[in-house]
Order: sequence, then C-alpha cells, then structure tokens
Amino acid sequence: MRIDGRKCDQIRPIKITRNYTKYAEGSVLMETGDTKVICTASIEDKVPPFLKGKGEGWITCEYNMLPRATQVRKVRDITKGKIDGRTMEIQRLIGRALRSVVDLKAIGEKTIWIDCDVIQADGGTRTASISGAFVSLVDAVNVLHKRSPFKIYPIRDFVSAISVGIVDNERMLDLCYIEDSRAKVDMNIVMTDSDEIVEIQGTGEQSPFTKEDLRELMILGEKGIKSMVHAQKNSLKMDSLWIGTGGK
Amino acid sequence: MRIDGRKCDQIRPIKITRNYTKYAEGSVLMETGDTKVICTASIEDKVPPFLKGKGEGWITCEYNMLPRATQVRKVRDITKGKIDGRTMEIQRLIGRALRSVVDLKAIGEKTIWIDCDVIQADGGTRTASISGAFVSLVDAVNVLHKRSPFKIYPIRDFVSAISVGIVDNERMLDLCYIEDSRAKVDMNIVMTDSDEIVEIQGTGEQSPFTKEDLRELMILGEKGIKSMVHAQKNSLKMDSLWIGTGGK
Amino acid sequence: MRIDGRKCDQIRPIKITRNYTKYAEGSVLMETGDTKVICTASIEDKVPPFLKGKGEGWITCEYNMLPRATQVRKVRDITKGKIDGRTMEIQRLIGRALRSVVDLKAIGEKTIWIDCDVIQADGGTRTASISGAFVSLVDAVNVLHKRSPFKIYPIRDFVSAISVGIVDNERMLDLCYIEDSRAKVDMNIVMTDSDEIVEIQGTGEQSPFTKEDLRELMILGEKGIKSMVHAQKNSLKMDSLWIGTGGK
Amino acid sequence: MRIDGRKCDQIRPIKITRNYTKYAEGSVLMETGDTKVICTASIEDKVPPFLKGKGEGWITCEYNMLPRATQVRKVRDITKGKIDGRTMEIQRLIGRALRSVVDLKAIGEKTIWIDCDVIQADGGTRTASISGAFVSLVDAVNVLHKRSPFKIYPIRDFVSAISVGIVDNERMLDLCYIEDSRAKVDMNIVMTDSDEIVEIQGTGEQSPFTKEDLRELMILGEKGIKSMVHAQKNSLKMDSLWIGTGGK
Amino acid sequence: MRIDGRKCDQIRPIKITRNYTKYAEGSVLMETGDTKVICTASIEDKVPPFLKGKGEGWITCEYNMLPRATQVRKVRDITKGKIDGRTMEIQRLIGRALRSVVDLKAIGEKTIWIDCDVIQADGGTRTASISGAFVSLVDAVNVLHKRSPFKIYPIRDFVSAISVGIVDNERMLDLCYIEDSRAKVDMNIVMTDSDEIVEIQGTGEQSPFTKEDLRELMILGEKGIKSMVHAQKNSLKMDSLWIGTGGK
Amino acid sequence: MRIDGRKCDQIRPIKITRNYTKYAEGSVLMETGDTKVICTASIEDKVPPFLKGKGEGWITCEYNMLPRATQVRKVRDITKGKIDGRTMEIQRLIGRALRSVVDLKAIGEKTIWIDCDVIQADGGTRTASISGAFVSLVDAVNVLHKRSPFKIYPIRDFVSAISVGIVDNERMLDLCYIEDSRAKVDMNIVMTDSDEIVEIQGTGEQSPFTKEDLRELMILGEKGIKSMVHAQKNSLKMDSLWIGTGGK
Repeated sequence: MRIDGRKCDQIRPIKITRNYTKYAEGSVLMETGDTKVICTASIEDKVPPFLKGKGEGWITCEYNMLPRATQVRKVRDITKGKIDGRTMEIQRLIGRALRSVVDLKAIGEKTIWIDCDVIQADGGTRTASISGAFVSLVDAVNVLHKRSPFKIYPIRDFVSAISVGIVDNERMLDLCYIEDSRAKVDMNIVMTDSDEIVEIQGTGEQSPFTKEDLRELMILGEKGIKSMVHAQKNSLKMDSLWIGTGGK
Repeated sequence: MRIDGRKCDQIRPIKITRNYTKYAEGSVLMETGDTKVICTASIEDKVPPFLKGKGEGWITCEYNMLPRATQVRKVRDITKGKIDGRTMEIQRLIGRALRSVVDLKAIGEKTIWIDCDVIQADGGTRTASISGAFVSLVDAVNVLHKRSPFKIYPIRDFVSAISVGIVDNERMLDLCYIEDSRAKVDMNIVMTDSDEIVEIQGTGEQSPFTKEDLRELMILGEKGIKSMVHAQKNSLKMDSLWIGTGGK
Repeated sequence: MRIDGRKCDQIRPIKITRNYTKYAEGSVLMETGDTKVICTASIEDKVPPFLKGKGEGWITCEYNMLPRATQVRKVRDITKGKIDGRTMEIQRLIGRALRSVVDLKAIGEKTIWIDCDVIQADGGTRTASISGAFVSLVDAVNVLHKRSPFKIYPIRDFVSAISVGIVDNERMLDLCYIEDSRAKVDMNIVMTDSDEIVEIQGTGEQSPFTKEDLRELMILGEKGIKSMVHAQKNSLKMDSLWIGTGGK
Repeated sequence: MRIDGRKCDQIRPIKITRNYTKYAEGSVLMETGDTKVICTASIEDKVPPFLKGKGEGWITCEYNMLPRATQVRKVRDITKGKIDGRTMEIQRLIGRALRSVVDLKAIGEKTIWIDCDVIQADGGTRTASISGAFVSLVDAVNVLHKRSPFKIYPIRDFVSAISVGIVDNERMLDLCYIEDSRAKVDMNIVMTDSDEIVEIQGTGEQSPFTKEDLRELMILGEKGIKSMVHAQKNSLKMDSLWIGTGGK
Repeated sequence: MRIDGRKCDQIRPIKITRNYTKYAEGSVLMETGDTKVICTASIEDKVPPFLKGKGEGWITCEYNMLPRATQVRKVRDITKGKIDGRTMEIQRLIGRALRSVVDLKAIGEKTIWIDCDVIQADGGTRTASISGAFVSLVDAVNVLHKRSPFKIYPIRDFVSAISVGIVDNERMLDLCYIEDSRAKVDMNIVMTDSDEIVEIQGTGEQSPFTKEDLRELMILGEKGIKSMVHAQKNSLKMDSLWIGTGGK
Repeated sequence: MRIDGRKCDQIRPIKITRNYTKYAEGSVLMETGDTKVICTASIEDKVPPFLKGKGEGWITCEYNMLPRATQVRKVRDITKGKIDGRTMEIQRLIGRALRSVVDLKAIGEKTIWIDCDVIQADGGTRTASISGAFVSLVDAVNVLHKRSPFKIYPIRDFVSAISVGIVDNERMLDLCYIEDSRAKVDMNIVMTDSDEIVEIQGTGEQSPFTKEDLRELMILGEKGIKSMVHAQKNSLKMDSLWIGTGGK
C-alpha cells in the first residue's frame, strides 16, 4: 500500500479541462492527482531562423512553475537571472515529445508555442505537462485546420508520458512528490498510442539499477501510458478523429 | 451602454476562491470579469538585509503574467533576460498597497511574499491583484496567528483597488481590456475600508484631463472600492474579524 | 518654517542652463535648489520596431543617477546587472509626460531620446527631470524645425512637474531630500500650461490620506507648476513662440 | 560497414592520457576516435550551501566546448549571455553519473569540481566526458587519500558511458558525428563495472522506436561499456586497486 | 598648425573645479579643452573580500560616459546588459594609476571609490579622468585625515596622465577627438611628479611605429605631464602640502 | 640565476604544433615553457555590422582560460554572468596585434575569428596567444588563398609578442608565473619582424619605473621578439613565403 492508498501499478486520477483560458488556440488544465499544469498552445505565423524558407513548421515548449506551486517557495528564474538546468531539460523534453508525433512539413511555416505552467506540483509535472500539452496541441492544430484545411493532417499519433520509479525497493507507477523525493530510481517514459517509445530517461543516481528493473519499469510505464492516452481520447472525443489518418 | 452591457458606474462580477492551491499559507484565485489572477502569500522566517535585526517584518510582491494570459502571446521575462518596466511598477505598487494597512512591527522578523500570477488578462490585472492579494495576506497572517498569537494583530484595515478611466469621453468604472486600450485617461485607485486613499495613479498620456475629471473619477473609484471590499468581507467572513481591532 | 527656511507653499530656486553640453540637439542643466540634472535630447532618424512604417515619431527617456549624486554612494545598475524598479518607473513617467504634449505624427519617423542624468540629488529629481527635459526637447524640435520646417509644429503645450507631500502633518510644496525621507504622503504632479493634469501619482504608504488632502495637495501642486512653467518660458524666450500654435 | 570502416558493434579506439595538465589534482585527455576532451578534477575545501554542516562532500561538473571543437564555429556561452540547454543537460548528467559510484559521506566536506572541456568533437562528447572524468576523479581522490587516508575509500565502482543509436535502420555502437547527425534514435547509457545501469537516456525524436530496439541497444551498449571500463583499468592500473574495496 | 590652432607640443587649457557636487568626500569637474569629466571620490568603511583582515585599504574606479557626451548618442551599458571592453580597460587603468602613488597600508581598511563620469568627450577622457580623479582623491584622503590623522600620510606623489600620438605624420601632444580619430599611433602616458613612469600604453594598430617614435612621444608626454601636475598643484594649493612627506 | 635556471635575457623553450585540431582552418598548440594555448583561426563569410558593404574584412579574437589552467580553479565567466576585465583587455589586444599586420581590404568581406584557449597558464599567456594566433592566422589565410588566390596577399609582416619585467630589481625577459606574481614592473611588447612596435603596455602599479628601465626593457623585449619570430618562421616554413610580398 502506497502513501496515498494506491497500488504499485495504479495511476492517480486524471482530469483534463479543455478551453481553460480564453485567448490561447489550445488551453488545457491538466490534473494528475494534486499536480496541476496549465498547458496552452499558441500559433505564431513564423518559424525560428534555422527553419526560415524551408516550408516546415516548428513546435517549441516553455515550462515554468509558479513560485508557490511547491511546498517551499521557489525563487523565480528572472530573479536569479537565469533559467535553471532542470527547467531547460524539461522544456526540451516536452518539445521533442510533441514533435515526435507531428508532421512538421504538413504544418507549414508556423510555430506552435507550448507553455506549461505548473500551478501545483505534487510529482510528475514533466509527464503531466507532456500529456496535457498534447491535448492543447490538438486543439491548436484543429484551429488551423478549420481556418484552412491541411492537405495532410499533421498529427500522426497520440503521445503521453508517465513516471515510474523504485521507492523503498518497490517498483511503482506515477510517483507523487513524497515518493519521488525518496525514490532510488526515477524514470520518465514517453510513448505513443502505437506502443512505441519516444523517450526514456532513467536515473539511478542514488543507486544503480539492474536490467531486470529496467524491463519491469517499462511494463509499469506502458500500463500508465495506456491510461493516459485513454484519458486524452475521452477528453478530445470527436476532435481527435483525424489523428493518425493523414487527413482527408 | 458599455461593450459588455455594463453601466458606466458598474463593476464586473467579482469571484474570490480561497485555498486555491494547497501549499501556500494564503492562496486565492481572484476573478473580476474575465481577469483571473492566482494570488499566493508565502511566509519566510527572515527579512531582507535592510531590515535585519530591527524586529520588523516585510511584505514584498512579485507579479507576472502567464505568456498566453493575453490575446497575443507575451515573451517570458526570462527569455528577454530582464523584467519589464510595467511589471516592476505593478509589483512595487502591490507591495506598497499591502504594507500600507499592515503593522510590520507587529509581524516580527518575517517576510510575507505575495505572488500574483495572471492566468487570464482582461484589464485591471493590477487592481485585481491588490484586492486578491489582500485576501491571501489575511489567510497567511491568520496562519501565523494560529501558530503563535500576535500581541497586536497586524492588519489594520481592508485595502482594495479598482481602475477608472475616460473612454469615448465617458468616465467609467473598472475598464475591461478593450475599454482600457481605447482609454484617453487611465487611473488606478487604492483605498482602505475607512475611505482613505493609499495610492492614486492617473495618466492622461494621450490627452490631459481636468481637475473636474479627477474629482468625478475619484467618486466612481470609491464606488468600486466599496464593492470590492464588500466582496473581500464576504469571502473572508469570520476570518476577518480581527482586522483593525489591534488584536486580542 | 521648513528646514531650509521656505514657507510650505514655496518652491526652491529654479535655474535652467541651456546648451550645457555641445553635441546634443538639446542640452539643459536643470537645477531646483540643490537638485541638478543634465537633460539632453538626441535625435535619431528611425523609430522603434512597433512604429516602423506608421509615419509617426517617438519620444523615449532614460533616467540615471551618477553614483555619488546621493549622500551614500549608489551602486551602478550595470554592476548589479539590472536596472532598478524605481529607475524604470521614473523613466517611463518622463517619457509619458513629454509625449502628452507632442504631436508624434507631426514629428514623422524620428525618435527623440531624452537622457536625464542626475548629478546631484536633493529630492524631486523626477519632477526636475520632466521640467528640464521639456526645455531640451523644445531645443531639439527646433533643430529639426530649422533643418526642415514642420507643417504642424509638434509641441502643443508646456509641460512641467512638481512634488508635493505631507511632512510632519503639514502639506508642503517641492520637498527637498530630508523632507521627502520623512514624508507620510508623497505626490508627483505633471501638468500643462493650460492647467490640465497629465499625470498624478500619490502614495500614502506609511499612512493613507484623505480626499481633502488630495484636494489641498493639488492646489499646492498647481502653484508649483505655474512657477516651473514660468521658468521654462523665461529660459526659452523666443524659442518657445511656436508652442501650441500648431505651426505656421 | 560503417562510414569509418567499423562494424556495428565496434567501438572507436580509446586513448586515456593522465596528468595531461600540471595544476589539477586529476587531469586527463580522453580520446575516443577523433573526440577529444580535457577532463580535470579539482578539489575545493568547502561544499555548496545546501550541504554545509552535513559532513558530506559533493561532486559537480561543468562541460564546455571550445568554439572551434566543431565543424562550424560555435558562439561562446558568455557571448550569448547564457548557458545553453544542451550544455546544462550534459553537465548535470556527468555530475549524476560520477556521484552514483561515490560515497559522498566518505569524502567529507569537500567539493570535487569536474571540468570537461571538449577540444575536438566527433560525436559522443558527453559519454567520453563521463568515462574520462571518472579517471580524473580517481586521481583526485587518491591525492586526498595520500594527504590523509580515508577511513572508507569513497569510490565504490567504475563508471563508464557510451552512445548507441539507430542509423540507416542499423543499430550501432559509439556513433561518430556523421552517424549521430543522421540517427533516428540516439541513446546514451551509463553503467558501472558491476553491470548495473546508472542512467539511460534514449530519444526517438525523429521516429519512435520499439521495445525490441531498446533491448538490442542495451546489449550493444553493455558491450561498449565493457571496453570502456577495460580502458579505464588499463590506464589507472595500480591506482585503481582501492576502488570498491571500501578502504584499507 | 593643428585643427584648433595649437602647436604640436601644446596642451589644451586645463580647468579643475573642486567641490563640484556636495555629497562626495572629493568631487572635481575636470576640463581639458572641451573634454569634461566629473570625478568623485567616495569613502567606504570596508574593503573587498580579497583584502579583508589584512589591514590594507583599496582604491577602485568606475568610468562611464553619459549617453550624449559624444557626437552620436551611445547606448547605455545597462541597455546592452554588459559593460564594454573599452570601459573596463579604462577603469582598470585609472585604478592602477591612483594606487601607484598611494600607500594602501597607511589608509587602513577602507575603500575609496573613484567615479569618473564623462559629461562631454572631446578626446583624452581617460587621461583627464586620471588627472582629475587624483585631485578628488586628495580631497577625500584629507577628509579622512581631518577625521583622524594618519600616522603615515598615504599619498606619496602626484600622478597625472596625458595622451600623445602620431597624426598626419606629426607627433602631437594631447589629441582632441578629431585628431584622435585620425591618429595612426595613440599613446597614453601616466607619470608621477618625480618623473617616473606609472603606465605607458601605445598602440599602432593602423601602422606600427619605430623606437624613435616611442622616444619622441615620451618627450612630448613628459611635457604634458608637467603642465598637468602644475594645474593639479594650483588647484589643490595648501591641501597638497602633505603629499610625499610621509606625514607629520 | 632565475627560478627555473634561465638567464635574465633568456626566453623559455618555444614549441609550435600546427594542425592541432581538425576542423579549424588554422589550429595551433602554442607552448612557451609550461604555458600552453590552443589558438584557432576560423573563417566566416560575413563581417560585423559596422563593416557591412565596405568591402573590407575583419579579424577579431576571443581569449579564455580553462578553469583549471591555473593553480587555483578559476570560476567560468558564464557562471559569473560576465566576462572579466582582464579577459576583455587581452582579447582586444590580440585582435589589434593581428590586424596591425594584415591588409583587411585584401581579405574582402570575411571575418577571421581567432580563439585563444589557455589550457595551462604559467605566465605570458597573452603574449603566447599573440604569437601562436599569428601562425594559425597564416594557415587560415592560406586556406582562403588556395580556394581563390588573393590579388594582394593580405599578411604584410610577422607579428610576435613577449613579456618583460622587473623582478627583485632585475630586468628579465619572458616571465613565468612565479616571477610575474612578484614583478614590480610588467610590460608586454608586440613587434613585427621589421623591428617596429605594434603595441607596448607597461605597468608599474607597485612602483613606478624610470625612463632608463623603459629603454632597457625594450632592448630585452626585442631580443625575445626575434626568438619568437624565428620560431614562427621555423614552424611555418614554406607556408610563410608570401608574407610581406604583397602577393603575386
């Protein structure tokens, strides 16, 4: 029995609220347990310099925590004058995860800015951000699709993420903050609905882990991914019909 | 008749949700019309260097907007590498407003950090921040009071803020974004429940205004302040009984 | 009787030295009592990005203090790596004040940079900056006018500023540093020669003030503004004849 | 056959030069193929603030590339004013990898600074950095050991790293730059001599990969790790006798 | 005949105004021709960390130009976010020059901050800064001396600086801006009243120069230094009696 | 006899390794005694904004030390957030030195970036950088020459640099670190093969020096320059035949 009464292979309740704020093309409040992230997707009609003139689009992400999303108030990046390493890692990860299921050529010369702002952090903020951001991305892509239908619908698959880890010698799915802070091994898995791996990041800083651990954690992770994709589908319903069809 | 059907002296609906997030000592979602601000108050057991050893407390504020709180996505401060001037003005204003009704000596050597993070901006974000932050401040002060009762209860009065302005030659209360962007004169008023002025900032950049305008805008502002304080009292109820009593 | 022997409604001696340095299109040493500010106006033949192609000009201001303009040496902004909040507020205020009396369309696609560098600070540096910067602005505009006469002369009115406040329960005009540091209420007023308000900023951080205080401080302020505009006119003499005429 | 004639499971030649520079307590030139990294380990007699007084040591890493380590000159971080995200990720990874095999309590209140400066980059700079830094760390720890013998010898195991990936549909070990830039899947593996995983980071940004890919890449990786640890042992010889013994 | 009518070995008129501003312990307006620099010396009762507890004092300098000290407005350092290389070189030079004639042990644990702010730049701002800063330093040291007499009077000698250069194949003393911008060789010389060299910096970027040029420029420079020290003595008069005496 | 057994007018052993790394157009490991600097020259097909469209090229330099090039680890510039003054001075000096012997018009609109990264610092790093960078510059210019022969060969002369100083009252050539840290006078001399001075920078911060010292140090310096140019010629051999010929 875990600290919050869950079984080791049990994910926390997932709640996805679309259209959470009114200006963004996609705007989602993603909740997994007590972790809450506002994910917005914003369309910009230009691409970064390295893509100019190539006819391709881009998806980029910025991740941040409100100062008091955490138990102890965190100093804002702007006060320290630099973005911290953890934040950079996370926003790069989210960007890669989303781009892995999108046909950037199909989008054309546009940038979709994903903003993940954590308003309450109880573990798993980076995986919740990926899963929520995907839903906001679909909404933003559909806004573009309504304005002017894509020849090839750009989203090829669902993508979700979940954390797994080893806590008190137990392999567990979807760690909450207290579990995470005690974990000997911590792994984040990003997978598609077709059961393929987009990213795997496992760290045994406090104690290395075995290949068997890796195999078993992957199995737990897949289970979590399935629940997460299920929640995404429930939330998007008819608005996700185009995904993976390649369009018209 | 205004763009959203209000009368010139009519304030937008106010909604104050306390305990909005779970870690902060005070945490409020402040909504005035479509403007939504998360206001948290966090206690830190030390004071800034200039107060060390003086036995006094401090209240300081940081204000920020989520990038897509606005119609067009705003670049994060950390990306530009510096905090912009408007943000600085606002957070200094909020800090002054709150300190004006608090007995900092009574608080002792503690800092209360106020964070106002705008998640949706439809005009009046700085005044909503002040009004909401006050409620979160009361909650945080009461947390301290419960831990160890103050000899002198530190909050001396309610403080609220509201915007007024001249739009299309009409003097109006509580401008929404569209009105604000067309306003010739823009004024923010911070007042206490005892009908005293804490701060007045009026700007007629696009066209100077008369002393009569100033008088009439003050009258509109007072009306708005009364509604705002009323909403604060309704929200805090029994938790505001100590305010202004000077304690025990 | 005030600390320097003045009456409560008495302004300090004003001295305006034009052509103080030789390169700037407008260059003024502004002195009010012991407060001394070098105000220069520099013409640049382009506008900031947000105005490009709109046929309008822009006026922007930078304000700074020499490190030893004050009693205690102030660390330079560049050493701290960021501009402080007070400086930002002041330079934004000066910019707004000057733009309020200028027809930016009439100027065409030019930027006028106003630099206010305080070499000695004895209270009222921001209001002295506005009053002095206005004179340097007139000189710079006249340089443009001589190069190629404007169809519409861009300066519509004189603008001046003065501080007022409540010190030791007395309402006073034009506070010097010692008064300012003891003031319970501090207000800066920017007005035109036509007796209209451009900006009013009043703060009662240490103790709120009444509406009567506001009324009386406005009356004091108007008196100070009249003296200040008088000094500007004396200094500019024939070079201010075009102001408010709209040109030929 | 690969671009440089290697087989898919073949690592590039490894060359480890100890005592490469004369001041650092540990100083290694690490070469894997044409990738060359200077790894130094420097002892400092204090720990970061979060460890002060806990009796534990710390190991931290900074990674950098000389501007012309790469085909196209890279702008220095200091010119851009900020450290880039990739650099941050890498230096955090190196630090975690080394700490995973060190008993920080045994080291006592000291910081060991690891600096990895890439002078020539032909793929696999982060894994070469880890493998080389480990050797420099052993040298630095032995310097401490000679000064004053540890009760518990702090290094518990060898740690090495290697890259694997999928290029042109082939799974390959130890990618050079040209392979890396064409890889669909890119994975870095950090393992100990006891065949345990310290870190695994696999990314299929351009195309997700299967669980079978993961299994097979792990097998290739283990092979590479064995060669790398072998080279570390050859280089350190008698100086590595203490590793994993727990001391005296 | 030079552009301003001077002979090749003729210095521009020197004017030294002491007590130029009222707060600094030493405050000088230094004018050489149209170059004008405000030099202040400020006393701080502590030393930088590297001197703490050594019983020695420190003298450090900051140099800056007002944005419109020059023909074309210069962007402020704080806007660019970094201090430029030329500024750094100059302020380091000024600090070294002043320290060379001061017995820092005699001063005790105090820092004297020299601020050189150029309000009008017509060539030779760094040498004018050194010469003017020396006078402000003497005034500040005398303030300390009056507060509590030094056992050993800390200033050992006068120090002055002057520029020389080769313009249109003529060797010239004290270049003004137009000469400086056309100079093939540019040299700054810092010397004491005892005819010793403190610093020599000569650059022939656009064309190397001969050893004879060096000899002849040194002779011109010495002539300029003599005039400059003469002006310093005239300005300081009785207040410089202690210099070089070693005190009582 | 000096600390390392040299005579006062004796230079340390010089070793110049060309083609030290594989990507840069010019790449040199420069060693003088225990001082080791990697100097690379990189060609970029554009010029800085101030030269755009003028048909001229540019040479610019960046200088840096690896953190543990020195006895005590130096914090990286990027960690402190700013480049330090000494580094700026040095890289500006290197750039000027190289430009002084190059016909920038002959190069055309290209920038040659010189990077000097010190991997071991035992005194004289700036002069070693100049001497080594010159060799890398010749290699890079010859790469351009092979691609498309210059009408006028751009390198007009050899340029080298050396340090001299007064240590323990002895005038010495080519100071090592221990000598440098004890030197009362420190001078860097940059000269061409034609025996002309490009730059001279002498500092007597701790004690001024006489004109005779200057003369004698110049004589020592010339001796060192001759050895250094000799080493450059030996290293470049046939590849330096074009220098000073002005080309075909």
